[in-house]
Amino acid sequence: MRSQLELTPIAKGDTADGPHYLALRDKIARGIELGKLAAGSKLPSERQFQGDSGAARGTIREALFQLEAEGLIYRRDRSGWYVSPPAVTYNPMRWAGFMTYVAEQGRSPTTETLSTELEPAPPAVADIFRTAPGTPLYNLHRRRSIDGRAVLVERIIVDPALAPGLAEHSLDGSLTQILTGIYGLTVVRNRVDMRPCALVKFAADALGVKPGTPGLLVVRTSIAADGRVVEYDQEYWRHDAIRVHVDLDVRG
Amino acid sequence: MRSQLELTPIAKGDTADGPHYLALRDKIARGIELGKLAAGSKLPSERQFQGDSGAARGTIREALFQLEAEGLIYRRDRSGWYVSPPAVTYNPMRWAGFMTYVAEQGRSPTTETLSTELEPAPPAVADIFRTAPGTPLYNLHRRRSIDGRAVLVERIIVDPALAPGLAEHSLDGSLTQILTGIYGLTVVRNRVDMRPCALVKFAADALGVKPGTPGLLVVRTSIAADGRVVEYDQEYWRHDAIRVHVDLDVRG
Repeated sequence: MRSQLELTPIAKGDTADGPHYLALRDKIARGIELGKLAAGSKLPSERQFQGDSGAARGTIREALFQLEAEGLIYRRDRSGWYVSPPAVTYNPMRWAGFMTYVAEQGRSPTTETLSTELEPAPPAVADIFRTAPGTPLYNLHRRRSIDGRAVLVERIIVDPALAPGLAEHSLDGSLTQILTGIYGLTVVRNRVDMRPCALVKFAADALGVKPGTPGLLVVRTSIAADGRVVEYDQEYWRHDAIRVHVDLDVRG
Repeated sequence: MRSQLELTPIAKGDTADGPHYLALRDKIARGIELGKLAAGSKLPSERQFQGDSGAARGTIREALFQLEAEGLIYRRDRSGWYVSPPAVTYNPMRWAGFMTYVAEQGRSPTTETLSTELEPAPPAVADIFRTAPGTPLYNLHRRRSIDGRAVLVERIIVDPALAPGLAEHSLDGSLTQILTGIYGLTVVRNRVDMRPCALVKFAADALGVKPGTPGLLVVRTSIAADGRVVEYDQEYWRHDAIRVHVDLDVRG
């Protein structure tokens, strides 16, 4: 049984006496909430739904699209609809890496390096790193998964002046640990920018979803005491895998 | 000229020597960055692009879809493509309402009340408000705009036990000011949950976009010193209108 109460949409008409598709949506959502439909399990086919409920094909699809929009179910290429695993919670006010916070939530994080290359910095990137355009910087492409399901692709940029020979290390884990442990780089400030987006082709392909699928772009800039950028990271998340939580004490 | 450097996608192949559509995407994006294409202005038609660039229709559409996914341009029903106004920055670590932080960014915020009704609390909502299911609660639907463009629809729930007669006030402004100033309710804790989503029909209709368009769901729970929920708010944002920023000092 999952607890996503706060994110349950409570749109007008989102009750049993609303449109037919919302009634079917509610029924399936309840099955997921109560754990009758377990995370990762396959939903009945649209044909079966039709037989069971007597609803029109269009009604069934609308209910499924609605559940997909809410992140409760997702499609796998040609093989139908599945119940989404619960989203992990990311707290940008905490200084903890993916490998740490995912494991803390009882899930299994993995990281796969897709490529590591030295690439000349385009002007915008050079600006961030306070270096000259064209300076070669490490560009690290990785894909990260939770319980075996790809949830994000990222491009990380690191200045080889700060971390010479970085590409010789295995980067299939926590980059932060390498930067801290091996290169002695200490981050004192972390800037996080997040923006909902549609997943563009390169990200969609790497995550096995259709281009245009909603996603979240998380950009992290980690800064050392001397103001230099230690790590610049762009993460493209699938929309149903992440939930951002901030708890703020307003007093004082 | 806008500064969105950090959010500029730097996907592999996202250079002039990448696929044709990326070259065209870069050209248009540069025009927007340099202010040659001003926020709110109309883009040339797809036909004009075809004439100017000699690119295939499919290439042009792919470039436009890419720019839409990044939030740089948007479609208006049947009238073509427009340059998106810059996104506003929302900082969940600050305790400031929409009317305040939008105005601080030199933009013009407006609020429109769509409906205010007393509705019986469904079990999930009753749980949040620590009340019995079926208890009548204020349900306030509003649409908020920036510089005249609708950017979010929200449903706010308030317990009439805390704010009797709330519906008699004009709610086309800051609800927080009314709850504080008139009802003496003080918020000591603010919980914010954010999740990228696809905009479902009711939200998409209210924002004039197609259902399935990417959005951001922001859920805020404002809590008083005695633990009671003062305000429970679900905001559905269009994806190109909001950027979330958190700046974290990691020391200590």
